[in-house]
Amino acid sequence: MRIGHTQGGFTLPGESGCEDLTLELARTWGADVIRDSDGTQLSDELLCAGYDIYSTICLIRDHNEWAAQHSECLQQTFLCTQPRMAEGSSLTVAPMEGFFTEQFRVNDSPDARRFWQVWDRTAEKLLPESAWRWDTVQGTVTIETEPFHAYTVSFLAYRIWEEINMYNHVTNAWQSEHLMPIDPCRPEARAFLTDWLENWCKTHPHTNVVRFTSLFYNFVWIWGSDKRNQTLFTDWGSYDFTVSETMLTEFEKRNGWRLTAEDFINQGNYQVTHMPPSEKKCRYMDFIQEFVADYGKELVAIVHRYGKKAYVFYDDSWVGVEPYGPYFPQIGFDGVIKCVFSGYEARMCAGTPAQTHELRLHPYLFPVGLGGAPTFQAGGDPTRDAKAYWMHVRRALLRQKIDRIGLGGYLHLLREFPDFVKYIADIADEFRALRALHEQDEVYTLPVTVAVLHSWGGLRPWTLSGHFHETYMHTLIHINEALAGLPVHTRFISFEDVKRGALSEIDVVINAGRAGTAWSGGAAWDDADLIAKLNAWIWQGGVFLGVEEPSAAPGHGDFFRMARVLGVDEDTGARVCHGRWPVQAQPVDGLIPEGANIPAHGHLYLTDADTRVLCAADGIPTLAAHNFGKGRGVYLSGFSYSSENARLLLNLLLWSTGRPLTQMALSDHPAVECAWFAARKTLVVANNDEAAPHTAQIETEKGRVTVELVPCETRFLTL
Amino acid sequence: MRIGHTQGGFTLPGESGCEDLTLELARTWGADVIRDSDGTQLSDELLCAGYDIYSTICLIRDHNEWAAQHSECLQQTFLCTQPRMAEGSSLTVAPMEGFFTEQFRVNDSPDARRFWQVWDRTAEKLLPESAWRWDTVQGTVTIETEPFHAYTVSFLAYRIWEEINMYNHVTNAWQSEHLMPIDPCRPEARAFLTDWLENWCKTHPHTNVVRFTSLFYNFVWIWGSDKRNQTLFTDWGSYDFTVSETMLTEFEKRNGWRLTAEDFINQGNYQVTHMPPSEKKCRYMDFIQEFVADYGKELVAIVHRYGKKAYVFYDDSWVGVEPYGPYFPQIGFDGVIKCVFSGYEARMCAGTPAQTHELRLHPYLFPVGLGGAPTFQAGGDPTRDAKAYWMHVRRALLRQKIDRIGLGGYLHLLREFPDFVKYIADIADEFRALRALHEQDEVYTLPVTVAVLHSWGGLRPWTLSGHFHETYMHTLIHINEALAGLPVHTRFISFEDVKRGALSEIDVVINAGRAGTAWSGGAAWDDADLIAKLNAWIWQGGVFLGVEEPSAAPGHGDFFRMARVLGVDEDTGARVCHGRWPVQAQPVDGLIPEGANIPAHGHLYLTDADTRVLCAADGIPTLAAHNFGKGRGVYLSGFSYSSENARLLLNLLLWSTGRPLTQMALSDHPAVECAWFAARKTLVVANNDEAAPHTAQIETEKGRVTVELVPCETRFLTL
Repeated sequence: MRIGHTQGGFTLPGESGCEDLTLELARTWGADVIRDSDGTQLSDELLCAGYDIYSTICLIRDHNEWAAQHSECLQQTFLCTQPRMAEGSSLTVAPMEGFFTEQFRVNDSPDARRFWQVWDRTAEKLLPESAWRWDTVQGTVTIETEPFHAYTVSFLAYRIWEEINMYNHVTNAWQSEHLMPIDPCRPEARAFLTDWLENWCKTHPHTNVVRFTSLFYNFVWIWGSDKRNQTLFTDWGSYDFTVSETMLTEFEKRNGWRLTAEDFINQGNYQVTHMPPSEKKCRYMDFIQEFVADYGKELVAIVHRYGKKAYVFYDDSWVGVEPYGPYFPQIGFDGVIKCVFSGYEARMCAGTPAQTHELRLHPYLFPVGLGGAPTFQAGGDPTRDAKAYWMHVRRALLRQKIDRIGLGGYLHLLREFPDFVKYIADIADEFRALRALHEQDEVYTLPVTVAVLHSWGGLRPWTLSGHFHETYMHTLIHINEALAGLPVHTRFISFEDVKRGALSEIDVVINAGRAGTAWSGGAAWDDADLIAKLNAWIWQGGVFLGVEEPSAAPGHGDFFRMARVLGVDEDTGARVCHGRWPVQAQPVDGLIPEGANIPAHGHLYLTDADTRVLCAADGIPTLAAHNFGKGRGVYLSGFSYSSENARLLLNLLLWSTGRPLTQMALSDHPAVECAWFAARKTLVVANNDEAAPHTAQIETEKGRVTVELVPCETRFLTL
Repeated sequence: MRIGHTQGGFTLPGESGCEDLTLELARTWGADVIRDSDGTQLSDELLCAGYDIYSTICLIRDHNEWAAQHSECLQQTFLCTQPRMAEGSSLTVAPMEGFFTEQFRVNDSPDARRFWQVWDRTAEKLLPESAWRWDTVQGTVTIETEPFHAYTVSFLAYRIWEEINMYNHVTNAWQSEHLMPIDPCRPEARAFLTDWLENWCKTHPHTNVVRFTSLFYNFVWIWGSDKRNQTLFTDWGSYDFTVSETMLTEFEKRNGWRLTAEDFINQGNYQVTHMPPSEKKCRYMDFIQEFVADYGKELVAIVHRYGKKAYVFYDDSWVGVEPYGPYFPQIGFDGVIKCVFSGYEARMCAGTPAQTHELRLHPYLFPVGLGGAPTFQAGGDPTRDAKAYWMHVRRALLRQKIDRIGLGGYLHLLREFPDFVKYIADIADEFRALRALHEQDEVYTLPVTVAVLHSWGGLRPWTLSGHFHETYMHTLIHINEALAGLPVHTRFISFEDVKRGALSEIDVVINAGRAGTAWSGGAAWDDADLIAKLNAWIWQGGVFLGVEEPSAAPGHGDFFRMARVLGVDEDTGARVCHGRWPVQAQPVDGLIPEGANIPAHGHLYLTDADTRVLCAADGIPTLAAHNFGKGRGVYLSGFSYSSENARLLLNLLLWSTGRPLTQMALSDHPAVECAWFAARKTLVVANNDEAAPHTAQIETEKGRVTVELVPCETRFLTL
């Protein structure tokens, strides 16, 4: 095996019993850190091999004895039954029907029962407590009903199986004990966990970095009893699993608001991150963040007291940690680790306020990968997988510094995959070269600042809620993925930010998504002040780029509240008898790269005769622009990530702000992207095409450069 | 030319100067009536040829001298400017900008000005009158504004060109005077028109039937100044053109409600028939219908006094006549004439409470037809057109009796089209044969009663708002067209009807359309009583067939309020993180005929594991059924009219109500339909395929019959 050319910034998962392999790979990949993994322990040989040691801990689980003795300290959630129709004047419902009984147990303590609710979902009425009765023995609720109305029961349930343990257990047919999650909301639980950590630090002298996975609360993940529909609800960004009678009571004391089951259940929809949060939800999230930061700070202080660093894994039980939130810096984490499939995740990690930013690359060193497809076993092609992910992640690394990369899983699986070992060595070298450039210089960025406008704004930049493959149905994740590698300045702002003056340094505002979602904005667009502020800014030269159903809000004359700027609106049915301006495309040369494609959207029409249609399909505009004062609106009917579409987006940013499509350090091929580091006179050129070589011409300070690249190649050119 | 085999029930447009041709065609086609047309007069030779004479009159126009002297008696409408953005604290708007100045003139009389409104459409606020000023000389409104809010001006405008005259004039480049429409809402106008009719009757002794075209108020048809977008708004079913300061004042006196411009303008949407009407709109429509009936009755009485009959043309100025409304019978019309392209229009005519039902067939005898395509001139194929329309209309005539048919236009154009003359003779014979069968017997109908459920219910059966080609984008018109020829009982009911117990005799309720429309029902579905009534009826054995977005209403847990019956719901974005039951089709043999196709609809999911998917596309159900008590819900994601899809609909009606797909007097080929008249032992079999011959087998009382039909053929079999 070839030894990597450079060293450092690489975290290797050690494997006891494979000490030689571990150390050989550490050298090959230039590792400076060896880590353990969930359920593994490093041998003394590895602990003492001269590498820094990361140890992973998931604080809230793996204390089953204590948890069993303090079952009131188990974590909880609200659950809600499916609507059940009454045939007569009474209905009996088993709340747990349809839920996975290995995950949940009804919490019918008197304190918890105060939060239970029975709703008539036909009449949308909350029933008085006198109209229903809980039978502890039968485990049923009997309800006085109106015939042929549908009813639901909302209740608190203990979570008796920590979900990450549950998932791994079920997926890998483990036979081990089900780990229970402890809720630190109670002082006795905190006392126990604090002691445990103190003791852990004391007994792990070799550990340099404690990696928290993450802190206390997992994202919501509700399982059903039927394997045909195992996941009933999951949302990487939602706070459902933080709830308990203790937290709700504390929240009421602090904020004066009594939250009810319905604030979480929300007519059975739950409060999904993809929909605009209510004020109550935001206040509750803030309350949880403050709690997590307060107790997290205590824990990090312990780690620091033992001379160790504390990193946090930005996944799994990350809920409440909220790295872009107001309380995160006070926790005092030294580093943030993010597992990444995509460029936007690398940008999300890079932007967190911590000293060290580390990426856990995919594929993990497991026999199977996502969805059960083979990886490190017969039929798998982990090098191909690694390349595919790297093509995405590298785009982000061209734009922003990441401090470390690493892998996870079992090294012994690599014995059959030498080409993978070689490829990771190459990646590690590329990564370190890019890091070195960023450390010495700011990468050249076009003088265009883009603000993505949505309900979450800067609290939740880049991601929507989880990985790309979990959110691909949302247009905005495709746009974020494109932006992650484009040579422009990118910000994420909320509607409140706009009202507070955040537009002053922005060139282009992007608002993209389905009507009513957190990404389009929903009811935020009922606000005249927001619209007037945007209008004024556009009039003075700003560009509003609306995608799919931007600024959509029902109840107004225009469905897109920015329709008069965009020159395009959507007919929700009320305007089917209105005349239509003819749709005739007047394209702009070179604006739409060959191979780009724009998903169509129905029911669109032009609000004005002077809307310029740039592209249309079947008589419906897919891309249009409309001048408004010194600025303009641009409407795009959809967006899906590809090299060509990313370049289309960049072209739109350039053209709409009055700039030529040819720019310094911009290649003339959509699959080829560049980064120019002026201080080092280094041009990094990357071919994002996994299959085809490409030749690109790039304008530089030293004139036009022509580069030929093999598939996936990264080239470092000194000019 | 061949002489038609039978005679009667046929109205021929006479043409002066072509007397011989007129009389020859009258014999050929078996006409018993000769009519005049808009702008033509019959010669004495035709008037005295022994035929009954229809004379068309459009009472409210062609009195320009009087109208010019009484301009306050011109008909009016509300208009609203396009939203205009204020750049500063003031904005000047010309209300007539963008409107066709030959159609409208601002009514700024003090009485009318009371109804003008200026709205801030950004803040959705009505401005006080002190905040704007009308400049009569400049013809502008100056508004005190908030910067970068958008404003509209709503105002009353006289209509100075009667719209049917305007359309014909502009389309045919006429040079004649623009006819102005008189509004009979003022007593002086009524006095004038009454005198005029009295005199007309007196001076037209040959006329047997006065055909009113129609009464007073045209459907709304607002033209713009830009020829690229000439029709700004049109709706065959809307009452905008009945408005005036007089009517609004009368309405306020009668109902106690002061209507404002906004009640008509509705944020610039106007009040389109395709959206659920507000209570105010319904009350106003009722008020207009009563007025129209009151004055219409006076006019018909005059006609009757002169020994003539009065027919009404169910088109053009039909607004307020509302033949299915409560006041229509008291007008006393002897007949209703409907121009038809489609089967549903024939059913709509047939069901009106009048003695005589007459269809005006297409194509009209004009050089060009719809959209300017050649008809009776080089390049035209009027026989093909006539066949295509007849294929649709005949289906309805198999099911219900029509008393008369006829044509419109200019006979001299037929000289070059002998095959058309022959084809009409054939049609006329077929029509008369069918009429004779209906007169002697009830056609055999399957014991299935279908109720189409929508906002308009029985007030507006069959049509949505106008012809098929004007409303093809609505799923329900395709369903209505299918039902028009299916051997089932069909009713149209409103949501109020359901609550009043209308379901008792119904087997299947169909609710079909886009969310929020009058066809799906919109806010009607917020009503728990409606839903419980439907649920109870289904539980006891009813079938709810929901198409596209049935029972959709936002703000509830389920988007389709009948989702728990249908077993299918649509995710509006809130449920994107919910698990999904797998979609796996379990088809029913023969349910979906070969060649049928179901338009897909996005974002659908199964609410239950036991929903039976009958058809799916790309993992999304397109047809599904779900048992509910003794009844069931059936969900169909879309519907477009074709022979195969019409049979699919019939199959669904049969299968969902527990009946075999093979039935008496039902052919085994979707393109072949039958009508069985038991008393006359006559089976009428029709091939609805214009291009291909078909052989069909039909179960009858006398055993299985096999019939071979050439394209379009109608066969009368005596068994």
